[in-house]
Amino acid sequence: MPKKALPLSKVYTLLETGPVVLLTTAVSGQANVMAMSWHSMLEFEPPLIGCVVSNRNHSYGLLRKSRECAISIPTADIAEKVVGCGNTTGATTDKFKKFGLTPVSASLVRAPLIEECYASLECRVVDTSMVSKYAFFVLEVIKAWADRKAKNPRTLHHRGYGSFMVAGETIKLRSKMR
Amino acid sequence: MPKKALPLSKVYTLLETGPVVLLTTAVSGQANVMAMSWHSMLEFEPPLIGCVVSNRNHSYGLLRKSRECAISIPTADIAEKVVGCGNTTGATTDKFKKFGLTPVSASLVRAPLIEECYASLECRVVDTSMVSKYAFFVLEVIKAWADRKAKNPRTLHHRGYGSFMVAGETIKLRSKMR
Repeated sequence: MPKKALPLSKVYTLLETGPVVLLTTAVSGQANVMAMSWHSMLEFEPPLIGCVVSNRNHSYGLLRKSRECAISIPTADIAEKVVGCGNTTGATTDKFKKFGLTPVSASLVRAPLIEECYASLECRVVDTSMVSKYAFFVLEVIKAWADRKAKNPRTLHHRGYGSFMVAGETIKLRSKMR
Repeated sequence: MPKKALPLSKVYTLLETGPVVLLTTAVSGQANVMAMSWHSMLEFEPPLIGCVVSNRNHSYGLLRKSRECAISIPTADIAEKVVGCGNTTGATTDKFKKFGLTPVSASLVRAPLIEECYASLECRVVDTSMVSKYAFFVLEVIKAWADRKAKNPRTLHHRGYGSFMVAGETIKLRSKMR
């Protein structure tokens, strides 16, 4: 999808709704991708994201080693690919090939962006003090990309046990919440 | 709404989709409620939640002092009340009265549950080591309540600037993701 740079101050608008995201990592030219739902914004700008990457995930070692990653946000049209990534391990599978996800070079990190996603965030690991206790990594988004035409993207939201809520209608309210 | 106890192992199914929640606190018989979108599951069972409560929020002091809270999950039918809570401060306003939210006694914490919400979680603060740096509190859910008839609740998901996505259709995929 045709993505343009997004101001870092707007990154929270992509993640605050709680979409399933695809986290990519790369070490020595070998990339991996995992599905992730346990993430939260921690700061607006520079945008900080906290996320859980379990040591049972193949990505855990790659993230610790490379200290960088990318987060790409998929929509319902590639739901099967996303679930495929969640059901397999990068230890034995090239998930990009298996599920037909296209890795695209990022600008500032070695982890690839995913072409089929409408938005991608390039991130550096900036705090690992909660990793040993909660597998919780603090990431700083250093570059953001989004398809500006995707106004109300049909993001996926995991309800557990293979059940996903797809983003529905948008309502506007007079909010002072940023 | 008629809520029944929910097994703690299923708490993540309520929060993983990223809904706007109402966080309630109480100190010395005075309760407050705030809208919150920055939260993430940290562990399945016992369920741990990480969430950002800024020191600019009136709830911050109440949460630090009482070390407990409740999280209630609203749906689109009370969207105006939720946004009202986000636009006002408990320092000068009784938000329950102002927005017509009904506080209900919890079983294990002093913070009230909110009657108009389809699910509520009673929580204790279990880790404050990330509070000074990120205003990030780690909560343990010690009791959970949900209206079991609310199968596909029309939860609210903040896109920023007063724009909210309302939970849409549910799709089932063969996921091994818990």
